[in-house]
This record gives sequence, structure tokens and C-alpha cells, in this order.
Amino acid sequence: MNAEDRITAWFASHTPLDPRRFPIGIGDDMAQVRVDGGTVLVTTDMLLDGTHFDRSRHSLEQIGFKAMNVNLSDCAAMATVPLCAVGATALPEDMGAEDLKLLHIGVTRAGAAFECPVVGGDITAWRGAGRLAICLTVLSRPVEGVEPVRRDGARVGDAVCVTGALGGSGRGRHLSFVPRVHEAIALARRARLHALMDISDGLSSDLHRICTASRCGAVLEARRIPLSDEARRCGDPLAAALHEGEDFELLFTVAEAEAGPLEAEGVGGLPVTRIGTITAEPGVRIVMADGAVHALPPGGYDHLETRS
Amino acid sequence: MNAEDRITAWFASHTPLDPRRFPIGIGDDMAQVRVDGGTVLVTTDMLLDGTHFDRSRHSLEQIGFKAMNVNLSDCAAMATVPLCAVGATALPEDMGAEDLKLLHIGVTRAGAAFECPVVGGDITAWRGAGRLAICLTVLSRPVEGVEPVRRDGARVGDAVCVTGALGGSGRGRHLSFVPRVHEAIALARRARLHALMDISDGLSSDLHRICTASRCGAVLEARRIPLSDEARRCGDPLAAALHEGEDFELLFTVAEAEAGPLEAEGVGGLPVTRIGTITAEPGVRIVMADGAVHALPPGGYDHLETRS
Repeated sequence: MNAEDRITAWFASHTPLDPRRFPIGIGDDMAQVRVDGGTVLVTTDMLLDGTHFDRSRHSLEQIGFKAMNVNLSDCAAMATVPLCAVGATALPEDMGAEDLKLLHIGVTRAGAAFECPVVGGDITAWRGAGRLAICLTVLSRPVEGVEPVRRDGARVGDAVCVTGALGGSGRGRHLSFVPRVHEAIALARRARLHALMDISDGLSSDLHRICTASRCGAVLEARRIPLSDEARRCGDPLAAALHEGEDFELLFTVAEAEAGPLEAEGVGGLPVTRIGTITAEPGVRIVMADGAVHALPPGGYDHLETRS
Repeated sequence: MNAEDRITAWFASHTPLDPRRFPIGIGDDMAQVRVDGGTVLVTTDMLLDGTHFDRSRHSLEQIGFKAMNVNLSDCAAMATVPLCAVGATALPEDMGAEDLKLLHIGVTRAGAAFECPVVGGDITAWRGAGRLAICLTVLSRPVEGVEPVRRDGARVGDAVCVTGALGGSGRGRHLSFVPRVHEAIALARRARLHALMDISDGLSSDLHRICTASRCGAVLEARRIPLSDEARRCGDPLAAALHEGEDFELLFTVAEAEAGPLEAEGVGGLPVTRIGTITAEPGVRIVMADGAVHALPPGGYDHLETRS
């Protein structure tokens, strides 16, 4: 478990929640809240200059587009339907109202693709040495007849599957990706997904999260992992696919018998690839092309790496 | 209208919302979203080092406490009941997991007073010159039988009232204030509030917002404005009460006949003071102690002041 997951576990253990009011709390891609007879889910993600984007190289419209899409990807990660967003922006001293409009254009363009308008927000000038930060919060609702899909339902013997192709997102795709909202909903309608996430911090890290939450392990087959064109141009394409992160593809587990048809048909024009199997033995291992089996520790992005 | 309000108006005009799905959109203290048969409200506020707090002088617990309370004050500003919060934190390089726990203790202590737990969040290390930023988003629900109270319902002849005392918040109260959630709900049950806000950017700015939204004006009586003990220690106590902001008291309008009983009884041990009257003539004026009448432009904190 990496440092970010340890602190998240600490938060969860120090925040007792009534499961009747909050069926899903800290530690999944979204929290679930019961409201009257209904239910709503909520996620929040903050994007920072120098970490998630680079203002000297990326346009404000690109930055706003990504800020909305990483949140929409969390809706996909639970197979839920986006409803609306609110946004908070910290403006550095060299930015003004015209820059905010460009950010907003990017945010609303991303939201419009999924009928997810911005319904409110907060703007603050950051005096002194403050840099651009943008925090979006998105609400969603379950698909009719389908419970939100959590991380903790993987079962021994399940097939581990991904959509699309992995790795090399840093070459540009991290700014322009399409969140897999429609694909997640289609998959959840066609099959009984036992566990589901979006790959934000890297396949190796995110699969560990499913395994930890589900109290199981997994074994991956290196030759099955779908490599993106950008990953193939990296020095170590497999490492890019395993650890780089910001793929924003879906990672899920289903019963063995359901994986074949999904792989044969794909979803929404995207390939679905079975890349491994859930095991009773904890931890994640990978079978390399030469048959050697290695332990695969979480190697993705750790937001708190090396910190106390 | 100040720069922040102009850009908010631009956002609102560029975001057409279906009022059946979103009865309240951009430009009020919270947005309202219909979910199945129910309804939920949402607000987001980001607090920044050097603007809303000073990490060199304030404890992380104080900072977390304020971050939650400014959002809870938005729930008060609509007379709604807090449900839960999600939080996103940008961590500068010198902060780690132990610091996050201190922030979390402050956030959860503020939330616990209003049964508003933190149900999820996001943590990101901000490499390079990033400073501490914390963005909380709070969901709330209407009080049974009472619609959320908006800014745009003030009527000509209404009494303009405030809770508590104003000014001098920067001397410490901005960190330790109690959001007026219970008082707002009690007021909304006892009287028909026509318009309601919390005073975050200063009485002069926030009253202009009610007047602009309600297409009316107002006249204040300087001698009626309740001055806090801290304001009395300022060089210009009235200016502190009018313009300083971060009072987080309630500002509301009610029919003339309802103001007297509220003033006589107060609310939850707090005074309620009638400070003026809503007028058909637009703009806000103030009658000074000597009888002179001055125009009162919005003088509170403008987050985008002097920016293009």
C-alpha cells in the first residue's frame, strides 16, 4: 500500500459513516449519499499547475477540458451517469476574467459531451506566489437497475479486463482523452461487473487498490496488456502501460464466463482485453513473455511518495 | 457590479440550465439539483494560503476548521441542512501525511457540529513552488416544508436584517466563527424570508448582490448597523462593518411586519437587527448618523479587482 492509500485508509477509519445514509464512503472513486428516496454520488479532483498540467505549454481550454474529464472519469469508474458539476478556481496574479472564460470554455465543452453542466462555483484571486489550481466536483446518479460498481467486489477466479490501450498518456492523451462514461454504463448493463475503476495512477497501482479492497490478489499476463501507440514509442513500453498512469481507461473484473463475449465484441468501438486473473493469494504478480513470474508492486504515481 | 460578479453573470448567461433539473443555478450561494423525487444542493469553496489563511501564523487544524465552515455558511445562506462534504487538498512540498491528519481533524470537527461528515476526497502533492490549497464541497438538503431561500426574492418595502454583529473578523473571528446554519433554519421556519445570504465579502458587497438579483435597491441606517467588539477597536468601525467581510452572519429581507418580532426575540441567542429597507430605486444608499445620505458602492472584497 502506498503513502496515499495509507492516509486514505486512516481517513476512512477515523470517519465512521452510517451505511444507510452513505452506502459508499471514503476510498472508492465516488461517495454515495442517500437523499430522500433517491441517491446521488459525488467526486472531487483538483488539478495543479506543474503537476497535472503545465500552463507554459498547455492552453487554458485544454486545462479546463482535462479538469472536467478527470472527474467524469470517476463517474465512469462507478458506472454512473453524470448530473452536474461545480468548480473552484484559484487565479494567479497574471490571470483575469478573460482567462477564466477560456478555462470555462474547456470545462463546459468536456461536460457537454455527457450532459453535465457547470451549475455553480467559486473564484479566488491568489495574491503573492500562488499558481493556477482548478478543483471540479461532479455529481452523478446510478444507471436505472444497476448499482454503482465498487472496487471491493472482485472474486477469486474473475477475469481482469481493461478497455482501450495503455501507456504513453503523457505524450498528449492525458489532456485530450475521452472519459469512458458510456462504455462503463454499457458494460455494466451487459455483464455483472464485480469491481471497476478508472486507471488514473497506473495499472499496477490501481489493480493493487482493487485487490486490497477485495481482499484478494491478481496475476497479469504481460503479453496480453494492450499497449498504446504512444507506449510503443517509449523506451520501455510495458513499464509505461503498467506504471505511467492517466490512461483513464476502465479496469474491471468479471466472472470468467463473461469475459469472452466482452472481449469478442468490445464496447462502443473500443477493444476489451482480458489481461489476467484474480487470485486468492494476495499481491499482484505478472507473467512475463518468457514465462518468468515477477511480483508487481504498485509503481504508479504516488501523490505522497517519500513523505512522512 | 464588481469584477467577480461580472464574470459570474457571464458564466450564468453562457450556461443555459433546465430549471426543472436545476431550480437554482450559477449566481446563488448554492446550486439546486433534482435527483429522482428528491433534491440536493451543492456549494464549493477553495481556501488559499496567503489569501484566506496564513500558514505561518495559523494552525492546520484552524485552517481545516475554516475550510469546512465557509462551506457550511453557504448552507446557512440558503437555509438548508448540511448532508456531507468532499475535500481536495493540494499539498506543498514541505507537508506530508501527518499534516494532512491535522487538517482533517479541523475539517471533521467543524463538520461534526452540523452532522456533516467528510465522505470522500482527493490529495495531490504540489511539486515545485505550490502552496497549500484546500477545496471543500458540501451537499445539503432543504428543510422539510421550506424551499431553499434565494437571493432574488427581496421586495420593495422589505426590512433588511442581519444576525449578530459585523466587522473586525480579520482579528481572529474569520478562523473560529460558527456558521449560522441552525439560526437560518430557525428563521426560515418562523418567518417568510424573501432573500437570504451569508456575509462573506462584506455587507456592502453582499447587499448589492441581493439588490441586483432582486432588481431593487436598499437604504441602510448607519446607526442601526451592529458593530462587533473587534470592529469598535478598528480605526473606522463602520467601514469595518460595511466592507471588511468574512463576518459569516446572515443578511436577509422580510416583510416589514415580520421584522419586529424577529428583532424582539433574536434567534438562537443571537440578536437580529433591522438595518434598513428595500427600495424601488436601484443602488444602495446609507443614512449616516448626521442624517446625510451617501451612495454605498460595493466595497467588500473583490476577488478579481483591477483585473481585465
